[in-house]
Amino acid sequence: MEIDYTNIKVIGFDADDTLWVNETYFREAEMEFAKLLSNYETPNKIDQELFRVEIDNLPLYGYGVKAFVLSMVECALELSNYNVSSKTIDAILNIGKDMLEKPVDLLEGVEDVLKILSKKYRIILATKGDLLDQERKLQKSGLTDYFHHIEILSDKKDDNYSKLLNHLDIKPEEFLMVGNSLKSDVLPLINLNANAIHIPFHTTWAHEEVQKRETNGKHYKTIASLRDLLNILG
Amino acid sequence: MEIDYTNIKVIGFDADDTLWVNETYFREAEMEFAKLLSNYETPNKIDQELFRVEIDNLPLYGYGVKAFVLSMVECALELSNYNVSSKTIDAILNIGKDMLEKPVDLLEGVEDVLKILSKKYRIILATKGDLLDQERKLQKSGLTDYFHHIEILSDKKDDNYSKLLNHLDIKPEEFLMVGNSLKSDVLPLINLNANAIHIPFHTTWAHEEVQKRETNGKHYKTIASLRDLLNILG
Repeated sequence: MEIDYTNIKVIGFDADDTLWVNETYFREAEMEFAKLLSNYETPNKIDQELFRVEIDNLPLYGYGVKAFVLSMVECALELSNYNVSSKTIDAILNIGKDMLEKPVDLLEGVEDVLKILSKKYRIILATKGDLLDQERKLQKSGLTDYFHHIEILSDKKDDNYSKLLNHLDIKPEEFLMVGNSLKSDVLPLINLNANAIHIPFHTTWAHEEVQKRETNGKHYKTIASLRDLLNILG
Repeated sequence: MEIDYTNIKVIGFDADDTLWVNETYFREAEMEFAKLLSNYETPNKIDQELFRVEIDNLPLYGYGVKAFVLSMVECALELSNYNVSSKTIDAILNIGKDMLEKPVDLLEGVEDVLKILSKKYRIILATKGDLLDQERKLQKSGLTDYFHHIEILSDKKDDNYSKLLNHLDIKPEEFLMVGNSLKSDVLPLINLNANAIHIPFHTTWAHEEVQKRETNGKHYKTIASLRDLLNILG
């Protein structure tokens, strides 16, 4: 069954790993973290433990770099049985500061696509994470002017999107979300009878992964790159 | 000269220390932090250094509890000349977690005042800090339904308010901001020709303090408690 996009009035774009590189920097940070703790555990065990601490802290800390750094510090204390050195804690803080100062690396075609689509649709940015960090990345990206509205969400579940649609004062069928995460950018929209297009990024955080059965019977399109949007919405 | 409030259509309320207690928890946390490091420095010196680290980190970390915890960890490393124990770092992380789990303690009269004013005005919440933490506090406060719109800002400078007024689609003279911080809730609004009412809280973070000369000739009202708003806006 073909999907009908003729009702679309507003397109929401996810930011991290949809418009610009993000997960790659987290992976690099995890590797640095594992190197710092290599006296205590294997890289694999360190990865696992860090993920566990992050997920445990998610309800309290939310998403973003600051939450990630706090979880790295906590994990370092635990994995070393409270023997980790102050210099290592300092190095962990610096991993976080470096992440916050990374340049914004736009994915291929982003600016062309936004330029064309923003003439025909209201374009919004809908992202989760640290408020300040996301605002800064948007600023550095040079893309601010294409967006009619910027929405930084504390999470991307059905309820968050439902509030967003209310706030935008549009019907679900008039909204299309575009992003790299099935869990955050696709499934909640399908649940609300809105539209979603999935553009996978080569790296996905384990927390964003979904089981095959969760997407069964869900009605969305997957495309290989942002440019393919133009063929669909031309 | 009396201020004319007859044009007001939208009232923005600050949250922390305007609707509920906040700074008190930060002060308690600072005292606990000074106790943890009492082997290395005097409480006074520890306070000063923590403030310096926080201000240095502000452009990178922004406001809120997570930023505060990261700055406490950094400050502990520096003040102890990298001799601080892992147990102390752990205790610092726990200070932060406790802060994020504090109950929301409403200031006197808040609910009555919002109930009355929300019948006559569009009421919005305009606060800065951690996105997730502020959303959680609002939820816990039971006040969500009084607000037409929630705006969590990465900062509260002229530019942030200017965008907010655009977004609300109202003229500056139609907006009144109510809050405890001259720097964040009053002066930027006066600069934009909007209105502001100041309700001092007994404790103010040093960063929010302003010099007497900065308020000279600025046209705003100061009231002792939220209930006094009803006399002004009846």
